[in-house]
Amino acid sequence: MLELLAITNDRFPVKELALSIIEMQESIDYIHIREKSKSVQELYLLLQLLRREKVRVEKIVVHDRLDLALLNGIPNVHLPGHGLPVYQVKKRFPELRIGRSVHSFHEAKSAEQEGADYVLFGHVFDTKCKAGMPGRGLDEFSKIKKALDIPAYAIGGITLCKLDLVRRANAAGAAVMSGIFDSEDPVESALEYSIKAKAHVDISISQAK
Amino acid sequence: MLELLAITNDRFPVKELALSIIEMQESIDYIHIREKSKSVQELYLLLQLLRREKVRVEKIVVHDRLDLALLNGIPNVHLPGHGLPVYQVKKRFPELRIGRSVHSFHEAKSAEQEGADYVLFGHVFDTKCKAGMPGRGLDEFSKIKKALDIPAYAIGGITLCKLDLVRRANAAGAAVMSGIFDSEDPVESALEYSIKAKAHVDISISQAK
Repeated sequence: MLELLAITNDRFPVKELALSIIEMQESIDYIHIREKSKSVQELYLLLQLLRREKVRVEKIVVHDRLDLALLNGIPNVHLPGHGLPVYQVKKRFPELRIGRSVHSFHEAKSAEQEGADYVLFGHVFDTKCKAGMPGRGLDEFSKIKKALDIPAYAIGGITLCKLDLVRRANAAGAAVMSGIFDSEDPVESALEYSIKAKAHVDISISQAK
Repeated sequence: MLELLAITNDRFPVKELALSIIEMQESIDYIHIREKSKSVQELYLLLQLLRREKVRVEKIVVHDRLDLALLNGIPNVHLPGHGLPVYQVKKRFPELRIGRSVHSFHEAKSAEQEGADYVLFGHVFDTKCKAGMPGRGLDEFSKIKKALDIPAYAIGGITLCKLDLVRRANAAGAAVMSGIFDSEDPVESALEYSIKAKAHVDISISQAK
């Protein structure tokens, strides 16, 4: 079983995005708000809309802007590689769940030592779905996974048919952006990912048996 | 007497900028860190350097990023027009001094009602120094100044020779970016502005007498 993190793709207006998130909330474990081109005012409005529509704050992850999380009572902050320092954020706000983007074994170990609650490693796959072909990042991911006590999530090119590879690498979960938000129907796609991510067995293996 | 706010111009590398600020700190009342192209990591480093070199935190104003101010113990945050909402920031962090950029009488009144500690109105002058010619924004500024109980600072095209006009409009202070940081010697320019800003009388008037 994999946790499913949906990551926004910075392509929808605030209200349209809010509506998608509200409709997909039962399918996903986390919605990671990563909207770099939006103003802080727009991001604030988006978070307000989600809260007003009773999206559980435990499911919302704010990218980069710790202040937006604090002001909206959201307990999850994801710090990018060139973002706020994990150690200082954790020290000042120990109640927050803090994630860190990492791109190497070394960065992953550092993030754990600094107090990150999880790491997001990528990109594990290069681009489009190539049946059964592991991306070059998955070996590194497995190495990271084994060396850490905190959960490691995989990100990058995780299509539906690659979820099983991510599961076999013992990821805590899969972070999916384009597979959900670039699809024709993000809400439907989130549901499809969810069904496959929540399967207790590796579907391809069980079918082979 | 005018307060002098130096506003960074986002053109210097972190260490060079830190050095300028450290050297000009006695001349200025506030240094407003507005470096939009820098990463959060770089901004954090800049604030660390300033603190390490004993620049008084009371003089440092962080633009936009409330979180950077909180993590570095800096008591001043300046919220741009499309930034975090003043009311919510003030409610959650009443100990902070919160400024707001405004561009009209209406925005200035709203900012005060929301709890801003000061407003920064601009741009009061269009571009280059034209001796004794008030920019079209200064009448609006005077109107704002009279209607508010909180301090109003003027920004925009304030050259050395226009400081007296700003003083006559009863501004709490002048915010200067290019006049200081685009000059050949920012530290020397800050000193020149300071001398003129701190003069107790309108030098041009006293000379005329």
